[in-house]
Amino acid sequence: MEKKLMDQVASYDSVSHSKVTVVGVGQVGMACAFSIMTQRVASEIALVDVMVDKLKGEVMDLQHGLAFVKGVTIKGDEDYSVTAGSKVCIITAGARQKDGESRLNLVKRNVAIFKSIIPQLVKYSPDAILMVVSNPVDILTYVTWKISGLPRHRVFGSGTNLDTARFRFLIGEKLKIAPSSVHGYIIGEHGDSSVPLWSSTSVAGVSLRHLNPELGQNAENIDWDKVETGLVDKSCPERVSQEPASSSDTEGQKWKDIHKEVVNSAYNIIKLKGYTSWAIGLSVSALTSTVMRNQNAVYAVSTLAKGYHGIEQEVFLSLPCVLMQHGIGSIIKQILTEDEKKQLQKSAATLWEIQKDLDL
Amino acid sequence: MEKKLMDQVASYDSVSHSKVTVVGVGQVGMACAFSIMTQRVASEIALVDVMVDKLKGEVMDLQHGLAFVKGVTIKGDEDYSVTAGSKVCIITAGARQKDGESRLNLVKRNVAIFKSIIPQLVKYSPDAILMVVSNPVDILTYVTWKISGLPRHRVFGSGTNLDTARFRFLIGEKLKIAPSSVHGYIIGEHGDSSVPLWSSTSVAGVSLRHLNPELGQNAENIDWDKVETGLVDKSCPERVSQEPASSSDTEGQKWKDIHKEVVNSAYNIIKLKGYTSWAIGLSVSALTSTVMRNQNAVYAVSTLAKGYHGIEQEVFLSLPCVLMQHGIGSIIKQILTEDEKKQLQKSAATLWEIQKDLDL
Amino acid sequence: MEKKLMDQVASYDSVSHSKVTVVGVGQVGMACAFSIMTQRVASEIALVDVMVDKLKGEVMDLQHGLAFVKGVTIKGDEDYSVTAGSKVCIITAGARQKDGESRLNLVKRNVAIFKSIIPQLVKYSPDAILMVVSNPVDILTYVTWKISGLPRHRVFGSGTNLDTARFRFLIGEKLKIAPSSVHGYIIGEHGDSSVPLWSSTSVAGVSLRHLNPELGQNAENIDWDKVETGLVDKSCPERVSQEPASSSDTEGQKWKDIHKEVVNSAYNIIKLKGYTSWAIGLSVSALTSTVMRNQNAVYAVSTLAKGYHGIEQEVFLSLPCVLMQHGIGSIIKQILTEDEKKQLQKSAATLWEIQKDLDL
Amino acid sequence: MEKKLMDQVASYDSVSHSKVTVVGVGQVGMACAFSIMTQRVASEIALVDVMVDKLKGEVMDLQHGLAFVKGVTIKGDEDYSVTAGSKVCIITAGARQKDGESRLNLVKRNVAIFKSIIPQLVKYSPDAILMVVSNPVDILTYVTWKISGLPRHRVFGSGTNLDTARFRFLIGEKLKIAPSSVHGYIIGEHGDSSVPLWSSTSVAGVSLRHLNPELGQNAENIDWDKVETGLVDKSCPERVSQEPASSSDTEGQKWKDIHKEVVNSAYNIIKLKGYTSWAIGLSVSALTSTVMRNQNAVYAVSTLAKGYHGIEQEVFLSLPCVLMQHGIGSIIKQILTEDEKKQLQKSAATLWEIQKDLDL
Repeated sequence: MEKKLMDQVASYDSVSHSKVTVVGVGQVGMACAFSIMTQRVASEIALVDVMVDKLKGEVMDLQHGLAFVKGVTIKGDEDYSVTAGSKVCIITAGARQKDGESRLNLVKRNVAIFKSIIPQLVKYSPDAILMVVSNPVDILTYVTWKISGLPRHRVFGSGTNLDTARFRFLIGEKLKIAPSSVHGYIIGEHGDSSVPLWSSTSVAGVSLRHLNPELGQNAENIDWDKVETGLVDKSCPERVSQEPASSSDTEGQKWKDIHKEVVNSAYNIIKLKGYTSWAIGLSVSALTSTVMRNQNAVYAVSTLAKGYHGIEQEVFLSLPCVLMQHGIGSIIKQILTEDEKKQLQKSAATLWEIQKDLDL
Repeated sequence: MEKKLMDQVASYDSVSHSKVTVVGVGQVGMACAFSIMTQRVASEIALVDVMVDKLKGEVMDLQHGLAFVKGVTIKGDEDYSVTAGSKVCIITAGARQKDGESRLNLVKRNVAIFKSIIPQLVKYSPDAILMVVSNPVDILTYVTWKISGLPRHRVFGSGTNLDTARFRFLIGEKLKIAPSSVHGYIIGEHGDSSVPLWSSTSVAGVSLRHLNPELGQNAENIDWDKVETGLVDKSCPERVSQEPASSSDTEGQKWKDIHKEVVNSAYNIIKLKGYTSWAIGLSVSALTSTVMRNQNAVYAVSTLAKGYHGIEQEVFLSLPCVLMQHGIGSIIKQILTEDEKKQLQKSAATLWEIQKDLDL
Repeated sequence: MEKKLMDQVASYDSVSHSKVTVVGVGQVGMACAFSIMTQRVASEIALVDVMVDKLKGEVMDLQHGLAFVKGVTIKGDEDYSVTAGSKVCIITAGARQKDGESRLNLVKRNVAIFKSIIPQLVKYSPDAILMVVSNPVDILTYVTWKISGLPRHRVFGSGTNLDTARFRFLIGEKLKIAPSSVHGYIIGEHGDSSVPLWSSTSVAGVSLRHLNPELGQNAENIDWDKVETGLVDKSCPERVSQEPASSSDTEGQKWKDIHKEVVNSAYNIIKLKGYTSWAIGLSVSALTSTVMRNQNAVYAVSTLAKGYHGIEQEVFLSLPCVLMQHGIGSIIKQILTEDEKKQLQKSAATLWEIQKDLDL
Repeated sequence: MEKKLMDQVASYDSVSHSKVTVVGVGQVGMACAFSIMTQRVASEIALVDVMVDKLKGEVMDLQHGLAFVKGVTIKGDEDYSVTAGSKVCIITAGARQKDGESRLNLVKRNVAIFKSIIPQLVKYSPDAILMVVSNPVDILTYVTWKISGLPRHRVFGSGTNLDTARFRFLIGEKLKIAPSSVHGYIIGEHGDSSVPLWSSTSVAGVSLRHLNPELGQNAENIDWDKVETGLVDKSCPERVSQEPASSSDTEGQKWKDIHKEVVNSAYNIIKLKGYTSWAIGLSVSALTSTVMRNQNAVYAVSTLAKGYHGIEQEVFLSLPCVLMQHGIGSIIKQILTEDEKKQLQKSAATLWEIQKDLDL
């Protein structure tokens, strides 16, 4: 039929310029793949997993939607040759914590899994950027960096980009402002010990903590006198004198809980629907797009944090980075409060406790 | 905080111009909602379900992704007031078949469910277009039309739009051509008795059956002598004489199975991954976009088919329709073979057998 | 033919949900219309102009491209009935300055033109938001507000949104960072006397002026001792002590000129290519999208500035505003330096000098 | 400043994966560049022209809009090194016809210009696909192919893709159907002697000529008895017997003029607005996207037509082609009427008359 219909004049056996691989077709992997497909971030998406049936079903389901999404092709295989020539490889695979299993043991099991994944990815896409999404993301990004042997700018973790998105959404919701118009970061470890940078959170150039100095404060661990940051001028008299910050207990409480709500987001969603998927999928799609399009946009992602903010261990933590074609182009040197630095350093120590015993 | 940050100068309590409701937050409903969100088809999406926990979890998960998708807001509630002012309401809710349950009984249970859904949708969005996705889609679209009391152009089912997409993908894959450049429809009942219109399937104006007259033929039910359609000229000597159609058994077989593969798609995917989601989500998103943007594009959707192709019963079956702001603007009067007509008529009779006993 | 091809089942005579009107088909108007079309901001675009030939040619040219842009229709007429039912009306029409003509005289001529445009727009789209793009934009937005009789949130000018975009691009270019990751505003009058808010310009929460206190400073008109803003803490010792701000004359000069470059942008581009078009088109498209999608995003647009930052006259100047479905939802109360306020007040006085003599 | 703000960890000096060059910054070139930018077809766009001032102004104007279009960078220079590493190079430059100048002379002048452009493009982007837009497009695509020395699949002309879009728009407008749901091609020479393939023009699989056999017929040059095509079965009794084709003279006339209207489009628009720009820009953007995304979609573009439909000369004419990463993947062998073939052959002869005397 083909020969009756048309004459072939060029070879078809090649890889698209903008190919992305997703390893792992669980709920997170598929939300990543589907976001990348519908937002047209890549023109070729390769899926890999050891669960061959699930993989085949997901590939077919995506492929049947191709009539509605121009300019994308979908491939899937358990053999990593299907990933050849990818510009970005996204790793969402990994073991889940068993009942009573120690965190260290979970990590060790995942190290074994990653040892089967990472060398294959590097073999077939030697120039690719590796993005780790599997949890615990900061440790597994370190693990990936070590196993891959790649320079540090080529390996990063999705990290607190999602926590940051939740933070902006929750603030935006309270202010009736689009999340994209709320500027502020959550950095550090993805999860419980993440650090919200209230000191530099702003809308239209107005620091929120300037409007309410109690914002995000926690009597136990903040020594307000020592706060010296780049974005808060606590001595500015103009508004603070007019409107006392602690205008009402309700307001204070409402705002104080935002970081707690961010931290609990994953737990709550898992309790309610069984897993998280959509937001992490969109977060990963945005990061991938930034790399694919060589965009130089700033996102908080997990990167080798040694040397920043007093961190001395070789750990990965999220810091705002300029993302581009080669992965991390630059790391922003934010100006943190002493307390924020201490939190980061504490996270670093905790991560290192686990990492130091890994056999990499 | 809000008052310190800004002065409100207009009222915020209103509904977006382009609001869409999705009823049901199962895998299909969520794939629809997520497709509509990522493809920016609506600026406000309302989700409704009776499973409150699942609903709440899904809404939170989507909302946390809003920092990555500009110009969309997400709401969810079990109360239908959240759907007020929608332009399109998509119904994906419904009971699943129990072991040993008759199809009629299943439909009856779904009728009961739809009686609790449809009047609520019409109450809060009296001008909305209703799109039914729940299966069996043709019967439930009829049910929705009856319960709603709306004119027929305001109620349609997602129907064979997905079957058509699968058909185009499979043909395109064989020819190494994008599905969007393959023109051809599957009409009739969504599912086993769907009718592939091989007689008018073409690429760049070239009828595929013209290149291979055996295409899609099935000795049992096609009387080739009676085929008289608008797009096939079986007497055209030019190529047929040069290249015999049955050039090889392999080729014949490869093509013959395409419709079977389409019909089995849902079964296969369910067997492999447990459910279908992505392709139906994209299909529904495309249909919704066409209505929201008043696009006048042609899609095969389930519509009141009485009076077409010899169908005499008041049943809904998929035919190519011009979709626009008011739902179905026009129904295309395709030129079918006698066999294609008979298949449609048989489906109509089967559907009517079930519908006639429903208490609507 | 239509009747042979299809049966019509619904009425086609209606206005799309998301219709936008552009008045004026000069280079600016067409860049706006084309941006809105290609970025799919509206599903129906109406063009109006008194130059009937030009209008007809532009409409045809856009229409011939519709095969490549799904879900948009284009209409054009000199009669304003073509604009009926628009959600946003964009005014780009207006007279150009003649040789030796006073600015006041130019404005007066434009007032006469606007008296023929604005009532027609309001008549056919009584609920529309009016966006003024014609220059001098601040005065003509005031004129539009007066002529229309609409509440202030329904009328705004594209204002310094474009200046802000140029500012972010130029800073981003120097830092090798995407403009979307540079946060900072130019407010006030669109043009020569615009005010760059260096004091709150930041990247990833780091104030640029904190890194270099001389940033944007101009010995003549800044009294540094009086600067008390929300985003700069000039006493912060951490970095300033380590790295003297005036590290090099070259660096200082490079940054000092950015605002000058913004102000001169329009002049330079007009000298080089004859007019400006693309950037203003994209700026207007972004603002329109924010309104159409009820997005609540913050943009600097020209709004009634009386009562802000010591401005006492009834003038329109650009301030960061939350844009939504009803136009301006809220006005951000930024914390400005005394010098920034003085500049705004001076602009206000200058504008009022012209406005007070207008016959509206 | 940069060093205070961030640490650089990777090299920035590289070319984006998806770079496109546009040669010529006239109205057509800029409409192409702006379409590619706003539709995010490339992540890097390089502009080249010898008119340095105009070039600089256009580049600045596009760059100032980058704050509104994520993931694109714009560069411009008169030196072709700026184009290095492009995946697609679009040539819109060329001389215009002088008063009284023969067509051959015009082509000769353009050959001289192309000799200065093409080798430079090939030098800096040895793997690029070359797309010619300058007129007369078919001859200049041949010229480009000859000068470049590239294989034929790497060089094509925008050809009748625009004529086809106009054809579909005009048919769609008459039927109140979206152009994307009208299937049909105009092939052959871009311009006066283009060939509309009425015989295979259809909506939803229904041949329009089947509904009205007079469609597009012209008594002078069509011998109806000899028409033997793949998509028209003129003997099909079903509808023709019910509804005589020549139902009214008005209808006949209305449809007969569509091709004439397509042919006159450029002339009319030039008369009305001075030049054509938007539709050709969108046409080129769509073709570029198809190549960049390796899409395998079918478009009518100007390709080496020797050996098709009886054409014996080495000329370029538009035929439906499968476009992909390497340019033209396949050429569709459409089934034409004798008359359609004769028209093509006549165009081929005319083109060859001019080409044979060129010094390439």
